[in-house]
Amino acid sequence: MDILIKNATIITCNAQNEVLKGDILIKSGKIARIAENIELPVYEASSVKIIEGKNLIALPGLINAHTHCGQTVLRSFADDMPLYEWLFEKIFPAEEKLTKEIIYFSSLLGIAEMLKSGTTMFYDMYFHEDMTAKAVQATGIKAVLSRGLQTDEKESLRLDETRELIYNYSSDRIKVFFGPHSIYTCSYELLEKVAQLAQEFKTGVMIHLSESENEVNTCYERYDMSPVKLCNQAGLFDTVCIAAHCVYVDDEDIEIMAEKDVSCVYNPTSNLKLGNGFAPVYSMISSGVNVAVGTDSAASNNNLNMLEEMHIASLLEKGVYRLPDILNAQQILKMATANAAMAAGINNTGVIQEGFCADIVLLKADDINMLPCYNPVSNVVYSGNPSNVYATIVDGQILYMDGKLSTVDEEALVKEIKSIEKYLKKGI
Amino acid sequence: MDILIKNATIITCNAQNEVLKGDILIKSGKIARIAENIELPVYEASSVKIIEGKNLIALPGLINAHTHCGQTVLRSFADDMPLYEWLFEKIFPAEEKLTKEIIYFSSLLGIAEMLKSGTTMFYDMYFHEDMTAKAVQATGIKAVLSRGLQTDEKESLRLDETRELIYNYSSDRIKVFFGPHSIYTCSYELLEKVAQLAQEFKTGVMIHLSESENEVNTCYERYDMSPVKLCNQAGLFDTVCIAAHCVYVDDEDIEIMAEKDVSCVYNPTSNLKLGNGFAPVYSMISSGVNVAVGTDSAASNNNLNMLEEMHIASLLEKGVYRLPDILNAQQILKMATANAAMAAGINNTGVIQEGFCADIVLLKADDINMLPCYNPVSNVVYSGNPSNVYATIVDGQILYMDGKLSTVDEEALVKEIKSIEKYLKKGI
Repeated sequence: MDILIKNATIITCNAQNEVLKGDILIKSGKIARIAENIELPVYEASSVKIIEGKNLIALPGLINAHTHCGQTVLRSFADDMPLYEWLFEKIFPAEEKLTKEIIYFSSLLGIAEMLKSGTTMFYDMYFHEDMTAKAVQATGIKAVLSRGLQTDEKESLRLDETRELIYNYSSDRIKVFFGPHSIYTCSYELLEKVAQLAQEFKTGVMIHLSESENEVNTCYERYDMSPVKLCNQAGLFDTVCIAAHCVYVDDEDIEIMAEKDVSCVYNPTSNLKLGNGFAPVYSMISSGVNVAVGTDSAASNNNLNMLEEMHIASLLEKGVYRLPDILNAQQILKMATANAAMAAGINNTGVIQEGFCADIVLLKADDINMLPCYNPVSNVVYSGNPSNVYATIVDGQILYMDGKLSTVDEEALVKEIKSIEKYLKKGI
Repeated sequence: MDILIKNATIITCNAQNEVLKGDILIKSGKIARIAENIELPVYEASSVKIIEGKNLIALPGLINAHTHCGQTVLRSFADDMPLYEWLFEKIFPAEEKLTKEIIYFSSLLGIAEMLKSGTTMFYDMYFHEDMTAKAVQATGIKAVLSRGLQTDEKESLRLDETRELIYNYSSDRIKVFFGPHSIYTCSYELLEKVAQLAQEFKTGVMIHLSESENEVNTCYERYDMSPVKLCNQAGLFDTVCIAAHCVYVDDEDIEIMAEKDVSCVYNPTSNLKLGNGFAPVYSMISSGVNVAVGTDSAASNNNLNMLEEMHIASLLEKGVYRLPDILNAQQILKMATANAAMAAGINNTGVIQEGFCADIVLLKADDINMLPCYNPVSNVVYSGNPSNVYATIVDGQILYMDGKLSTVDEEALVKEIKSIEKYLKKGI
């Protein structure tokens, strides 16, 4: 059904950062028109759903540019631990127990949480990624998916799985990227191979890059260069490349990233939780690097709430640089919408603009914590929380409205997750 | 009406950090009993409200240990600006326009937001503080209030207002403290006077302390000692003293604070937003300083959501110290409950314990973003958001439940705030 949103405050995230007051007409999943007082011809009126937007803020759907949906079932499984203990004693043994079915429900859980907090697209890397793809198909959200790759006896099997993902799931709503996990889990030869394959399949790459000091030190010991330089040399930057984290990048790294159009995904919560530190996002942006925002997984966050992530993302840079005027609300919102789409080479979402996909979030502007409103963008980024989300719309489909998910049976999902919780608790 | 909460997961925040499964019986505003399967005698059953808690987490009501409720109407009024410009060009001129009536509605707005996000008590400093006191009375929340003091021609008038606050508003739910704004806005003589008055009135003191590098430098220039030492010398630490911020405290300062039982209020969001930096909270705690958590005002945050503040509080220390295992979820929750009560010398709230006030928050444990739940404390602190708050209970009174505030007419409040917004926009 087509939709007409009336009299909303529209944060466009377009090139001029326009904030408008007006109507949005959605037809066949696209933004057909943005104007004041759109009148529908009588013969159309009955087939269009009208949403009164007087007390709503419309913004482009948020894009969670780095997560691992299959890990959502590990929320609160292991917290407040040093990285090594967390990973090797808790997360890895638990992951051994994650079946295809569990990954499906874990993905569904993550997607449900994202839809309820205003996210319309996410970028993901994990195993049994076909199950995440099925959850994306079932819910109607959008995603860029990758099967995590690493070098061991199953290396070629994982590459095969990536190819299958591309053949079986690529669509208007799903893009498949190659997902070399990191420079410390992939051989140099694998990185080179991935670079070639990505070009061959005309797709992109996502990788964890310069996340920890340890990673960078190891890279210098092994290759006598930084992880960024290594990836560049392997050819990974000759295709669309999304680099998650980038906590330990130096000026030369940043210069290479800017020159080669590599996008960084800033994951402030995860970097803090695991004690990795602060990414020099302001320096990257100042040097022309495109930066998006991600929550990372529920195991290292522990939520997939992009509204909170945007707030933390802005605060942290202001604090680290001691510059309160950097990374303002509009910049951060753009990093979580238009710039995130750009990071994956997607140019029909992330902006409220005629002709673009109707990927739109509606927030309740009259909620107590959103008032007063001298600046709607500030209120969204700094004051908003999931209780303010009224509707999440993807390709013109209302996937969440007024507390209800339209494509997820929440009650059944809660039951499944509780039984998975019981199973994962055993013997660990 | 008395209340019986059945079968809840109870995070007690008691000395043993017990997490129980069971019932809580609330009688005459107090926690009368905590046990499994509490049976009510027939003659009592009809006068007790039963809350089925199978899918609820009960925790002590959150305590927002530093805010300025009168500033809530300045949410999003001025963001992304350097401190000086923010304060002198935006906030101060706007404050000139804040009438008694505006402060009342601003306080009501802040209190409504806090109740909806699980806060049952807050510590406040501002002007027209009698209006904040009236809003506290009207809503049923608890507060420690102070009239902000500084040295100028109105100094003694403000002291008189503090005395009036003490006489007119002190109660079981309201404590009045003396509120010297800071060492840079108060003369040394005023600090000494306040120290004497606080002792005379058998009450405490709250002050902004070592918030910025500039404050510390100025203090050394003027007094040749740190702000902490200055306050100690003036006698402020000889009474209950709550010091907000403490971003720039050195080892000697911390030693003094520990020895004199001065509590710090950690305001991570505000410190980051204004570019002040990171408070060494882990060092303070390790040295035995009691630390609480606060949001600061909506003008410098921009929300009063203690669930988010706890998350940021934990993350930031982990990141700054590069130690993922410090400030765990239980410690942070305690800082926002039991330790915050202790900071103000209040010993009947902040813990779910028999005999204590029934200041309790109920969170929905089965919400999508709260599942799975291997650790309820982690889920509250790291995953919870206001959409998960089911009820906020103060002194056994249900002030918020299932989306509805019982003591605030939300619709009327929204109208008032919108008209205040219009008025404040004019001419600035």
